[in-house]
Amino acid sequence: MDRRDFFKISLAGGVSLALVQRPKALAGTSSSFVPSNSKEYFDSTGSFTQQELIELAEKHGAPLYVYDGDLIIKKFQEFRKAFQDNYPKVNIHYAFKANTNLNVLSMLRKQGAAGECISTGEMEMGFEVGYKAEEMMFTSNSKSLSELEFAVKKGVLINLDSIPDLENLIEVCKKLRKQVRVSFRINPDINPHTHKNISTGHKFTKFGILQSEEELLKAYKMAKENSYILPEGVHSHIGSQILEVEPFLENVEIVTSVALKLKEKLGLELKFLNLGGGLGIPYYDNQIGLTPKKLAETVCPVIKEKLKNFKNLPELWLEPGRYFVAQSGILISRVNSVKLTPYKNFINVNTGFNHLARPLLYEAYHRVRILGERINFSKDLQEYEVAGNICETGDILAQQRYLPLPKVGSYLAFLDVGAYGFSMSSEYNSFFLPAEIMKKRGSYYLIRKRETLQDLLRNQITHPELKT
Amino acid sequence: MDRRDFFKISLAGGVSLALVQRPKALAGTSSSFVPSNSKEYFDSTGSFTQQELIELAEKHGAPLYVYDGDLIIKKFQEFRKAFQDNYPKVNIHYAFKANTNLNVLSMLRKQGAAGECISTGEMEMGFEVGYKAEEMMFTSNSKSLSELEFAVKKGVLINLDSIPDLENLIEVCKKLRKQVRVSFRINPDINPHTHKNISTGHKFTKFGILQSEEELLKAYKMAKENSYILPEGVHSHIGSQILEVEPFLENVEIVTSVALKLKEKLGLELKFLNLGGGLGIPYYDNQIGLTPKKLAETVCPVIKEKLKNFKNLPELWLEPGRYFVAQSGILISRVNSVKLTPYKNFINVNTGFNHLARPLLYEAYHRVRILGERINFSKDLQEYEVAGNICETGDILAQQRYLPLPKVGSYLAFLDVGAYGFSMSSEYNSFFLPAEIMKKRGSYYLIRKRETLQDLLRNQITHPELKT
Repeated sequence: MDRRDFFKISLAGGVSLALVQRPKALAGTSSSFVPSNSKEYFDSTGSFTQQELIELAEKHGAPLYVYDGDLIIKKFQEFRKAFQDNYPKVNIHYAFKANTNLNVLSMLRKQGAAGECISTGEMEMGFEVGYKAEEMMFTSNSKSLSELEFAVKKGVLINLDSIPDLENLIEVCKKLRKQVRVSFRINPDINPHTHKNISTGHKFTKFGILQSEEELLKAYKMAKENSYILPEGVHSHIGSQILEVEPFLENVEIVTSVALKLKEKLGLELKFLNLGGGLGIPYYDNQIGLTPKKLAETVCPVIKEKLKNFKNLPELWLEPGRYFVAQSGILISRVNSVKLTPYKNFINVNTGFNHLARPLLYEAYHRVRILGERINFSKDLQEYEVAGNICETGDILAQQRYLPLPKVGSYLAFLDVGAYGFSMSSEYNSFFLPAEIMKKRGSYYLIRKRETLQDLLRNQITHPELKT
Repeated sequence: MDRRDFFKISLAGGVSLALVQRPKALAGTSSSFVPSNSKEYFDSTGSFTQQELIELAEKHGAPLYVYDGDLIIKKFQEFRKAFQDNYPKVNIHYAFKANTNLNVLSMLRKQGAAGECISTGEMEMGFEVGYKAEEMMFTSNSKSLSELEFAVKKGVLINLDSIPDLENLIEVCKKLRKQVRVSFRINPDINPHTHKNISTGHKFTKFGILQSEEELLKAYKMAKENSYILPEGVHSHIGSQILEVEPFLENVEIVTSVALKLKEKLGLELKFLNLGGGLGIPYYDNQIGLTPKKLAETVCPVIKEKLKNFKNLPELWLEPGRYFVAQSGILISRVNSVKLTPYKNFINVNTGFNHLARPLLYEAYHRVRILGERINFSKDLQEYEVAGNICETGDILAQQRYLPLPKVGSYLAFLDVGAYGFSMSSEYNSFFLPAEIMKKRGSYYLIRKRETLQDLLRNQITHPELKT
């Protein structure tokens, strides 16, 4: 029975259709679908009420990103506690790229997060809200000499991707006569069950040093023997949106083996092991997530056991992004029109992949809610595609969703878009970037103004000579 | 023989490897690959010299978009002449979304182009550089009431997507007590051989009214009978990057049949037929493009013949974007490092899908040149992936390319990126958007400044209350 059949049968039967058993194949895969109690499926809007979302959209306009700041903090604290309960020294780096709003960065810093940065832009945003150099790390598969120079001058730890990356860094340090702390990213060659575009840790990807003993020892030896380079850690990231513990466990086995090998062969006792990020969230109704508690309880004992002969147990570094912010965010759009055809039905909204790229890029599923509609479950639901307003065929934000017929002007919300939502947005088709609102302790704050024509014109210079 | 084998065999044979026969399957498909004379393949950089590109990058930094303004005008003039030679009344609308730099818009207007707009942002940019309302049209599958209001107030023609879209427009016109000229987009249900994400004209896409006679007549009848609505044309767009004449011909058959049907059944003689855009360019070396001349010579006689009984032959409207601007543009990036592995070799550059999204979104092929390298063809070439600096596995800008080994700091150019290059760019990973340069009659103009930290911070509002 495929999911469409499921719904057809279930909906005919009325409201109560909670599926007791979760299909095995669905665990944690983003292409899966978890049918749920339909009442819950169509109505819940996370930690916001529908009325609250409607009022925010009426006041600030749509499309509008709204975040629950309290939930971000709760998720961070839950994650930290899980690891601190199971490991003595934990250092959590928030992956800035997931949501780079300054308020998110500063709020997490205040809670004790460090920052994982991909670019000088991210490091500069970190400095802007008070992160110190030693509270950030710079990691990228492709770092320019000037980016390396920026990080070395500031004193930010650098996560190296390869021996050529190290060679560039040595040049920079020589020139600046300045030491730098580093780790190496290794490519664990693990293939987690996630979308190909977010599976980062297999050997054909661009990331990291392959786990050949020769290559790894060569890299660390070069680093250790250079007076400018201080090799302190090892890093390995297996991918994103992972909801099973096994890939993380495999990753820990590899990272600890590397640490043991470096101690044995080079007499180098690493100061930290960085397991990267990758912890997923449940995007589907009734989908079961992997809790930080379960993750920590599984991986931490392995590290402690494997490295029990270390003089000092290394710090455990982690780099979650999505886990802290995804569920806090909702994108509210407005229904422009509804088009019914014999082939498909379309709910046309006033946003598109310019503001929410994940469905197009990763075939990602985001739950969709039509706000403020009273639903008669026995007859009102139809299958729709939620179509964006970008002039491209691929701009379908949600496929095959059973939804009530919305009115023109109704608000339609996409859930769980706090991570890789606004941060991936663009001005394609010359739409303005949305405003962002954060809720905290019952108050609402405008944390980013909606763009205007002046933003589209920014930095452009017109020349009369070019007209003729 | 797949293309990798072809190169392995050919390169062993030395320099002269022009393939006389172009493989049949490759015609015009974006997933195809046209092997070419390797000397030409690795060296040519369109209408710029390598030295010129290197000097521009040295002066303005990289990544850098450069455009040949003379080529844009040449392509426009070639296209217009082809159609004017074959049809008495031609109205060419440039699809702004392909490249929305103000200088491109104003340069094409000066040449006589009208504008095809997707959003109020695009219309406003048009007004900014002097387009009059009657020189633009507004088309989108999903228009909001406020966008419709904007277009009606200004007097911009609206291309309607559906009957519900018309109903919204009637509401708006009633409120404003203002008439508006319209056309309807029809869905021709044609499946051109192009990437699924840019094939816009088949019946499962979100675009247009299906060609059921009943639905079409209903739409035009509703429009004709409403005193606010002036139905003047019909529109049909089949997709992008099309290099075969057959889908265009099919489209003309459909559009003219609609025009005839409207005359017969409703006594409505349309003032224009809008064939949309879709004319592709050769992205591969030695790929054979479809010329505007061949296209015009094929489709124009059909229209004239089919509509010979019209009192007034309708105007022919066209909406090219890519054809005018794609080949004018080059993205210059810089090589950060080169990583060789037993599985793949990576040239890591200082740009990514944040600045050039087409390879990730459409599996698009852009020719790659390493600038200023002297190549020994008999031994220097290796297969590389060109990897971007975005922290995602999918950020590979070019796959399986035979290239010389670049030095750190070498410039690497992506060709034919003038369309859907900068216009699809984003600030993901907090990299700054590139600067843009236009060359015209031997002079260079900075037409967009490179972004800085201030651009990333624009519109953000921090609140001390959110930290605690």
